[in-house]
Amino acid sequence: MAIAIHPAVDGGIKPVSAKFSGGTLECACNNNAVTVSVASQIAHNHLCGCTQCWKPENALFSLVAVVSRDKVNVTHGNNKLSIVNTDAIIQRHYCKECGVHMYGRIENKSHAFYGLDFIHPELFKEEGWAPPKFAAFVSSIIEAGTAPEDMSEIRAQLKSMGLQVYDCLSPELMDIIALNAAQSK
Amino acid sequence: MAIAIHPAVDGGIKPVSAKFSGGTLECACNNNAVTVSVASQIAHNHLCGCTQCWKPENALFSLVAVVSRDKVNVTHGNNKLSIVNTDAIIQRHYCKECGVHMYGRIENKSHAFYGLDFIHPELFKEEGWAPPKFAAFVSSIIEAGTAPEDMSEIRAQLKSMGLQVYDCLSPELMDIIALNAAQSK
Repeated sequence: MAIAIHPAVDGGIKPVSAKFSGGTLECACNNNAVTVSVASQIAHNHLCGCTQCWKPENALFSLVAVVSRDKVNVTHGNNKLSIVNTDAIIQRHYCKECGVHMYGRIENKSHAFYGLDFIHPELFKEEGWAPPKFAAFVSSIIEAGTAPEDMSEIRAQLKSMGLQVYDCLSPELMDIIALNAAQSK
Repeated sequence: MAIAIHPAVDGGIKPVSAKFSGGTLECACNNNAVTVSVASQIAHNHLCGCTQCWKPENALFSLVAVVSRDKVNVTHGNNKLSIVNTDAIIQRHYCKECGVHMYGRIENKSHAFYGLDFIHPELFKEEGWAPPKFAAFVSSIIEAGTAPEDMSEIRAQLKSMGLQVYDCLSPELMDIIALNAAQSK
């Protein structure tokens, strides 16, 4: 691949395993790592170009998916966690030592995605989680420094990897947000 | 066509004319109609599903394009115009009698689209304006009452008409917005 998108996809996207029903997320600390138990397969896994999501160094995109919040439990190192920005819609709980975001939680019960936690599946110690199907907020990587003239090649590469390309979320998720807005009126 | 998208596209999309270099927009009043002179071809013409844009009755989408603001002049009936919402980013100047939006203007000089006015090209008395190439904010029609289960068919129909389908703006425009955000930091 000409452009490094994200370590979890650059070497080829690994397939889902029917046997995978959750696992353990681990932060990047060599000692006393934070661990988070996720007791389900993940949904809506995707690359995200927004400037808020945590991403590995040198990755253009983050990798993010959702799981039901009742399936997420911090099993070690809760005292090392803090919230990036308590005013953000998604409260990102990150490890104060290594900086890795362990889970993002929505506390606003009227939000379309309330009840879902956002996780970075490359932190799973196990394989078999559902692979990404699309890239969201692609244009936003310009905000993080990508040159506009590189965007055509980046979008083309994402498509060549079998990923749909959106500058917001996927149609399925955008429809859910719109329905929530309609019902809130 | 199974679904009425917009009168300007439902009967087949009319081609651009190289001779078109502007014309006159006219509101829907039978008498004393507001007229606006537009002294250029239009750009970025598209269908828009947002709930703010004016649309003809029974249309699912509005039709909207941009022109340089210095090419737009109210030539008759300026006293009949008012602004829908002075707090909105786009100040939509509409005819108080018939309700038609004649032009939308951005007054915030730091906005990515400052300098461009938004117009509804079906109001042109002349033909030959550049046809729409995409549909934007498609999911937003749910906010106006479209059932989520109808969205697949609507998106498929738009694509069958040769229109790209986005739940935000087109990649070209989203990249401009992102670059503006990057430069504002």
